[in-house]
Amino acid sequence: MIRTVAQYLESLDDGREMWCMGERVKDVRTHPTISGIIRTAALDYVLPHHPEYRHLFVTQDEDGEAVNYLLTSPKSAQDLLRRRECFATAMRTGGGVLLHCMGADALAAFTVTANAMDKALGTDYSQRVENYRKLLMKQDLGITGAITDVKGDRGLRPSRQKQHPDYYLRVVDRQKEGIVVRGAKVHISASPCANELLCSPCRTHGEEDKDYALAFAVPCNAKGVKMLAVEPVNRTYGAEGRFDYPKTSALQPTECLIVFDDVFVPWERVFMCGEWQYSRMLAYAFGSYHRLFGTCKMIGKLEAITGAAALVAEYNGVAHADHIRKKLAWMAMITHMVAELGKAACLDPVKEFGLDVAMPNPMSINAAKFTFASNFHQMCQHLQDIAGGLCTTVPAYRDWQNPDIQPYIDKYLGAKEGVPTEHRLRLMRLIKDVTCNYWQIDTIHGEGSMAAQQMHLYGNADWDTLKAAAMRAAHIDGWQDNPIYGKLLSAEDVEMPPVDESYASIPVGLK
Amino acid sequence: MIRTVAQYLESLDDGREMWCMGERVKDVRTHPTISGIIRTAALDYVLPHHPEYRHLFVTQDEDGEAVNYLLTSPKSAQDLLRRRECFATAMRTGGGVLLHCMGADALAAFTVTANAMDKALGTDYSQRVENYRKLLMKQDLGITGAITDVKGDRGLRPSRQKQHPDYYLRVVDRQKEGIVVRGAKVHISASPCANELLCSPCRTHGEEDKDYALAFAVPCNAKGVKMLAVEPVNRTYGAEGRFDYPKTSALQPTECLIVFDDVFVPWERVFMCGEWQYSRMLAYAFGSYHRLFGTCKMIGKLEAITGAAALVAEYNGVAHADHIRKKLAWMAMITHMVAELGKAACLDPVKEFGLDVAMPNPMSINAAKFTFASNFHQMCQHLQDIAGGLCTTVPAYRDWQNPDIQPYIDKYLGAKEGVPTEHRLRLMRLIKDVTCNYWQIDTIHGEGSMAAQQMHLYGNADWDTLKAAAMRAAHIDGWQDNPIYGKLLSAEDVEMPPVDESYASIPVGLK
Amino acid sequence: MIRTVAQYLESLDDGREMWCMGERVKDVRTHPTISGIIRTAALDYVLPHHPEYRHLFVTQDEDGEAVNYLLTSPKSAQDLLRRRECFATAMRTGGGVLLHCMGADALAAFTVTANAMDKALGTDYSQRVENYRKLLMKQDLGITGAITDVKGDRGLRPSRQKQHPDYYLRVVDRQKEGIVVRGAKVHISASPCANELLCSPCRTHGEEDKDYALAFAVPCNAKGVKMLAVEPVNRTYGAEGRFDYPKTSALQPTECLIVFDDVFVPWERVFMCGEWQYSRMLAYAFGSYHRLFGTCKMIGKLEAITGAAALVAEYNGVAHADHIRKKLAWMAMITHMVAELGKAACLDPVKEFGLDVAMPNPMSINAAKFTFASNFHQMCQHLQDIAGGLCTTVPAYRDWQNPDIQPYIDKYLGAKEGVPTEHRLRLMRLIKDVTCNYWQIDTIHGEGSMAAQQMHLYGNADWDTLKAAAMRAAHIDGWQDNPIYGKLLSAEDVEMPPVDESYASIPVGLK
Amino acid sequence: MIRTVAQYLESLDDGREMWCMGERVKDVRTHPTISGIIRTAALDYVLPHHPEYRHLFVTQDEDGEAVNYLLTSPKSAQDLLRRRECFATAMRTGGGVLLHCMGADALAAFTVTANAMDKALGTDYSQRVENYRKLLMKQDLGITGAITDVKGDRGLRPSRQKQHPDYYLRVVDRQKEGIVVRGAKVHISASPCANELLCSPCRTHGEEDKDYALAFAVPCNAKGVKMLAVEPVNRTYGAEGRFDYPKTSALQPTECLIVFDDVFVPWERVFMCGEWQYSRMLAYAFGSYHRLFGTCKMIGKLEAITGAAALVAEYNGVAHADHIRKKLAWMAMITHMVAELGKAACLDPVKEFGLDVAMPNPMSINAAKFTFASNFHQMCQHLQDIAGGLCTTVPAYRDWQNPDIQPYIDKYLGAKEGVPTEHRLRLMRLIKDVTCNYWQIDTIHGEGSMAAQQMHLYGNADWDTLKAAAMRAAHIDGWQDNPIYGKLLSAEDVEMPPVDESYASIPVGLK
Repeated sequence: MIRTVAQYLESLDDGREMWCMGERVKDVRTHPTISGIIRTAALDYVLPHHPEYRHLFVTQDEDGEAVNYLLTSPKSAQDLLRRRECFATAMRTGGGVLLHCMGADALAAFTVTANAMDKALGTDYSQRVENYRKLLMKQDLGITGAITDVKGDRGLRPSRQKQHPDYYLRVVDRQKEGIVVRGAKVHISASPCANELLCSPCRTHGEEDKDYALAFAVPCNAKGVKMLAVEPVNRTYGAEGRFDYPKTSALQPTECLIVFDDVFVPWERVFMCGEWQYSRMLAYAFGSYHRLFGTCKMIGKLEAITGAAALVAEYNGVAHADHIRKKLAWMAMITHMVAELGKAACLDPVKEFGLDVAMPNPMSINAAKFTFASNFHQMCQHLQDIAGGLCTTVPAYRDWQNPDIQPYIDKYLGAKEGVPTEHRLRLMRLIKDVTCNYWQIDTIHGEGSMAAQQMHLYGNADWDTLKAAAMRAAHIDGWQDNPIYGKLLSAEDVEMPPVDESYASIPVGLK
Repeated sequence: MIRTVAQYLESLDDGREMWCMGERVKDVRTHPTISGIIRTAALDYVLPHHPEYRHLFVTQDEDGEAVNYLLTSPKSAQDLLRRRECFATAMRTGGGVLLHCMGADALAAFTVTANAMDKALGTDYSQRVENYRKLLMKQDLGITGAITDVKGDRGLRPSRQKQHPDYYLRVVDRQKEGIVVRGAKVHISASPCANELLCSPCRTHGEEDKDYALAFAVPCNAKGVKMLAVEPVNRTYGAEGRFDYPKTSALQPTECLIVFDDVFVPWERVFMCGEWQYSRMLAYAFGSYHRLFGTCKMIGKLEAITGAAALVAEYNGVAHADHIRKKLAWMAMITHMVAELGKAACLDPVKEFGLDVAMPNPMSINAAKFTFASNFHQMCQHLQDIAGGLCTTVPAYRDWQNPDIQPYIDKYLGAKEGVPTEHRLRLMRLIKDVTCNYWQIDTIHGEGSMAAQQMHLYGNADWDTLKAAAMRAAHIDGWQDNPIYGKLLSAEDVEMPPVDESYASIPVGLK
Repeated sequence: MIRTVAQYLESLDDGREMWCMGERVKDVRTHPTISGIIRTAALDYVLPHHPEYRHLFVTQDEDGEAVNYLLTSPKSAQDLLRRRECFATAMRTGGGVLLHCMGADALAAFTVTANAMDKALGTDYSQRVENYRKLLMKQDLGITGAITDVKGDRGLRPSRQKQHPDYYLRVVDRQKEGIVVRGAKVHISASPCANELLCSPCRTHGEEDKDYALAFAVPCNAKGVKMLAVEPVNRTYGAEGRFDYPKTSALQPTECLIVFDDVFVPWERVFMCGEWQYSRMLAYAFGSYHRLFGTCKMIGKLEAITGAAALVAEYNGVAHADHIRKKLAWMAMITHMVAELGKAACLDPVKEFGLDVAMPNPMSINAAKFTFASNFHQMCQHLQDIAGGLCTTVPAYRDWQNPDIQPYIDKYLGAKEGVPTEHRLRLMRLIKDVTCNYWQIDTIHGEGSMAAQQMHLYGNADWDTLKAAAMRAAHIDGWQDNPIYGKLLSAEDVEMPPVDESYASIPVGLK
Repeated sequence: MIRTVAQYLESLDDGREMWCMGERVKDVRTHPTISGIIRTAALDYVLPHHPEYRHLFVTQDEDGEAVNYLLTSPKSAQDLLRRRECFATAMRTGGGVLLHCMGADALAAFTVTANAMDKALGTDYSQRVENYRKLLMKQDLGITGAITDVKGDRGLRPSRQKQHPDYYLRVVDRQKEGIVVRGAKVHISASPCANELLCSPCRTHGEEDKDYALAFAVPCNAKGVKMLAVEPVNRTYGAEGRFDYPKTSALQPTECLIVFDDVFVPWERVFMCGEWQYSRMLAYAFGSYHRLFGTCKMIGKLEAITGAAALVAEYNGVAHADHIRKKLAWMAMITHMVAELGKAACLDPVKEFGLDVAMPNPMSINAAKFTFASNFHQMCQHLQDIAGGLCTTVPAYRDWQNPDIQPYIDKYLGAKEGVPTEHRLRLMRLIKDVTCNYWQIDTIHGEGSMAAQQMHLYGNADWDTLKAAAMRAAHIDGWQDNPIYGKLLSAEDVEMPPVDESYASIPVGLK
């Protein structure tokens, strides 16, 4: 089944316990900021119906029924490339697959591990996973992965934590019909928009930690599940949000701290329980799949950032400066590399564990992730540097809407002829939204830009002395009048006996 | 005179026209967010009365009256060191000298340029500057510098702008009693807290731009002065601000876009008007002084950031990891270097232009500024990296204050034994406050930390082949079984004629 | 035809004028150091005969005769991938394709430009290029590209040089049978081993520079061609070379400064003469092809360097240190990225200019080149860092061969049990060979390694004060006793009027 | 006593056992390459006699006799500043203090540790050290420090080494008159020029390693001392060396592997023997002093490198390019910072261990060392980048001296008018000498410079798409026609219920 947006929105009215900024969320669909991400998540139910994208997002299950492609398990390079195309396209759209990225990657990882456990231990996890997959497909449920435990003291294993044993999600009771779990998962993306939570370990376990080797799925409104939504990045919405925080108002953080307060999970939804030797494989498989998503997420982000840098250079009238072009070239290069390395990871997948699944090439996918993670701050620095201080001090929507002050803003914050001031403001707001923090920008632009320091350093260095140092070293005349190097002695003046030319290892000198 | 806090606060009730978020600010002292920085600025009137700091901030004028030291002009290395000590101490305090940093640096720069103009052109600017300084001292006024013009198209000079001629502040009328000025200054720090605005060019001018070569001072409530305050970094205040944004709620951005809508300035307050050859000197002198302030500002910031990194490593239980220690060592090194280079700039000042003033050494001060500006993003990256994703998803004050959910937060977001959860939350909020943006942190921690990628890259690299490449190159046996390098040919197998040993330049080979 | 090694070597005895270290080279095949690269270049005539590599290097011409694949023009992604495979394999072998890389890339670029010129100008260059290609194939000649002019003052165009007009190669006479050329090309790789020189412009030209828009081919022994070989990297050969400089003794620099002292070129070997509008295309096409070679060249080099780092970590007994592993992971990542980006450049070629040729994707190939060029020094730094100072002070072959001192070297320069000292010496010599210079290594290891500084910085930083700064900022108790932060004032103590809660833009505070 | 050069040279004829390149060195004063560094070391006996430098290098002992200042122990900031001035001046001279740097720092460290041991353990080491110092002063001996052990397996402590117990220098016999020592020290700078070797541990020891806690001094010609000199960086000398390797031919590496083959040391020359708790202090004190020397050594080196970059930019005709100036500014900044941080380390010394000695500030001195060590490769990269490929393919002296080819070199390797070709060659040789290795330069310049890649990346990036990404994100019209971003859906089109405006935490939206 492929649900409609209306069906999806309807499904969210399920009585879940969610909190935001200390207030109980009455309805995620109407909360001022959370409704923004619900709207974005709804794209997952628009794209499969759209003629341009249907071929990507829709496939058929064994009954011939149309189902969401992201709920299938990738088996080849071609499957990974299509998955990548779904992710990249939807994220460029502005946040589609928000709702399926974590969950789809967790589901794929469940498949890998279930197969391996069944083969080695004679368990029947694969059947459970396939049954659950069928349920998801038939009902077209929105899923997310709940992976990261709160961890407590990171220097201690799960079972050795000192304050309480619940810093990692664990089974506290094994009953006939199912299990009872306790603990909390943190930073769980897309959870306000999801129907189902797929839970998985986030680390390697030893035998003593076997109660923590635990994978399962529960609905978001399961009894005992409490979702504490993270603070919105900003507290704006509607037209104000669109203007002031054009990117984050549509893509406010979706993370929740999810507490599992003795939640019951029936056995058919349990996909690992005690098989501590396989926690590592599950975490590794999830990570490999999810880094592929990460590189797709970044394509749109890096394109927007690089494009914003090119655009603001134009708006500011500095597009022709050589150092600006070099920065832009570098930003375009990083953007290109992340995309290509992600593609390379699909083209040359690994068939881990001898199973019928394809996982992204680990060298390429980790190189892609590391490339953007290690360079993103530098990209922000370049963008902030090119934009100028206005990317932090730009007026806000409420300023711009006020007719008493708009004329002054319009007059004074224009720049390049032909560019409406409002365009420049909107672009600066975008840059503020995606690169801000205030301190970083202040650090660059307060007391003059880095280019100003470079100019002063160039202008104030004692080039005569520095060149004299080089000339003297290279035996080029011209250093003799320098006050520092000119008066120095030379070892050349030391009188030495003649060289003994009888050593075999050294060629005889030129006379 | 040294004013009391009460006198200072009283002086701000002066009818100035200020706007914030599209609303007219009724009283800066009671506006929810602006009052936070007023409170911080008021430290400038606490420190001189405090027994520990009086010796730094208070000196005597020629009449023997106690006056603010920052209103004097530095004449020696000792003066610069004391100025540095004032700046560094007050900024560590949390934002003292907020109100005097820009203004004091502008005033010092006026002195430099006035002397130079008088000497070369026979003007009487020095006398005007000294009279104005006396006024400031006697009334102990809060001053800020208004330097940066809005600039329009940055590729065009002031007089060549296409849309209108007012992108740089200019004189539009010269009258008997004074001049009329029009234009706007942007990013003007401390302006909501100031009594006086000291305006100065921000760039070099040519003769055609002489109407823009303009320096003067006006009160903040002068007719025609409109101050458009920048949006607060966050919209919290009081206890919520203290918890959620501990640093910025006390140090919200203070910048205004200041419009000069045909403002009249009497001649005794005009310190440059048309002397375009001296715009460069004024901008340069201001920049040199103000970068000294910048390095002082950063001491406290870098200490807080470096300390937060050390503390969060402890709270998270990872203080003993080698890679954490190396990051901490680097952060401590940058912090130390900025402080030491600022000190070096004072110890070896330049006596520019043959005048009786001392300016910070330009190599040292620009190196100091460049060191923090070019490394700050890296420091943020390290801090975000060490803190973990919780530094963006940490609950907010309104969450923590809610008794229904506090117990869960308390239980699950603890870490190292002995550290109260609230302490960890407060520290994470600080880190969120000073390093955030959400995208940067997501970029690092989404899909696993950089250390995870490094682990996978290390684990997945084909070390056998790589080592075989090295062994083969070094003629060490062991590469022969490698599938890639083992089967390669070697040039050694090519049969060559014997070497001709008769060349003088090459020593004969060892047999 | 596919020549044998013997036929190739025979062909080099052609009376060419070559100099090395001021001495006339009597025979390139027997010169002590040049013969080393001749031996390496001869691999180009071994690989096509070898059963493992024949499928890569040999194809058939239109007559069905076996010819060198590198002499064909790539028309598709598949062709580029095969070309890449040839380059990468042969360079891993130790320097195969040395002789064909520059020449093959120049030949491919001639094809691109000839087609474009013929189409636009009605010339018959394509026919000439194809005839010349046929000659090369039938005789299986070794070719190199002579691209870089000596350039004189780089700030001036070719025709505006002040000292003489010959800083860029130019036509000085157009005769009935051919043209006469004068000038010099510099850094011409593989020229001592080549039969033919393919000359091409290295930059964009304007109309005034049309005499410099010049492409042609001449044999190495043409009258007036003078080849001045660059100094060998080291002056060793034979067994001493193998031990002391295992990589460069087989791959000594092959560059010549080639003087064209009024050399005659018949028209059938002229491929551009005056068509200044096409110099840019020729230079661009050559650059695109040659950067593909560059990435292939680096695969083997980066593998050897990364492998050497892993191996020396083992030999030194430090392979388990976390910071070593992070460095190794990074080196493996760069190595991997260069290979993958080169592959990506082939997979997504550009069909420039509407012609039937495929050129490497310019984003990917330039990203690949930039990745290794901008990171190579860092890789050297890591390798030198891991190896320790011994990679510069390691004994040489003549030391090791001396029975009086070998026992001491053997005893004292061993390290990890089970690793023969000779292996460690050979590896250190390789590292010295490929990363040295002495100053760099001294800079790292003199006065203690960087890790030592990091340890001292960590050990000496004033962590109490730094943490106090953070605690105070985050409102966490514990900073009060710190001598610096403990006594500072707080703005909290300033008495302020109550906040006005009537502003619409700010939410009401939590009581 | 202050010896003359002649006296110094005479003293080297002492029968020492030294080897170089497998050959027994008959006389260090006449060996072709070693004599070069002897000449340089002799500056230590020229400077004290020179009127300009006498005040730095000469002081008086308690008898009023003139002695070498570097043999005294620094007790204050002033002493450290003078020591720094000696080091920096002599190193700028071209290598003065070569002979005293390691030894003087070891002697200072002996003083620190002897005092501490005497105080804690009641030993009489201080007296021995002072007696030895007096001997050195009276005879004006040249001294070096022998610190670094060969170490074997770096993962194992000295006493746990598996192959033999001699990887760290140790006492093998304690006799009535003295001790017998066995082991080897590696990379011992200045040892060919020294009269005396001052040996010290290079690491922390545990009790089980107490036989390795060993400090003493012996003459270079002591029985059982074998010095194996490192290979010269190049094998040139005389005029050829001056031209081809202007810096290293005067400053060839001086390091020896020194074997102590059961060497007897009388008790009065033993300064630690078994006091394992103090090894750490000795190593730490030596390191702190010696890093001060390191920063002084680098001043001259960095000045020569930075100056060479400025000069070659001029010679090549590219001095006005913005990106060149930014690189030069950065190089000048690093050079300045190293000098200033070294000075700061002297100005704020630590008085460790409560003793009457001053040691450089550990934060500043380690920051200085780390600054140059971590940035030196980048400086080399910049210099190689600015110089161009000719800095590796530049002709050598033997080429230039050959009248048959000199005219061609002279003509074709000129550049900027007014700069003699020979000057350009000499400068390129200097750059080759100090930054080379061939691979690094090839990596940058092979297949086009990095600026070429940046140009291509800038030219080939899909700016339309990138800008469309930004415009769409910022809600600026103009992206609609882009083939990638134009057709994407928008979450704005999703129909959502109206927002619930009753949440206290979010301000009501602007209508």
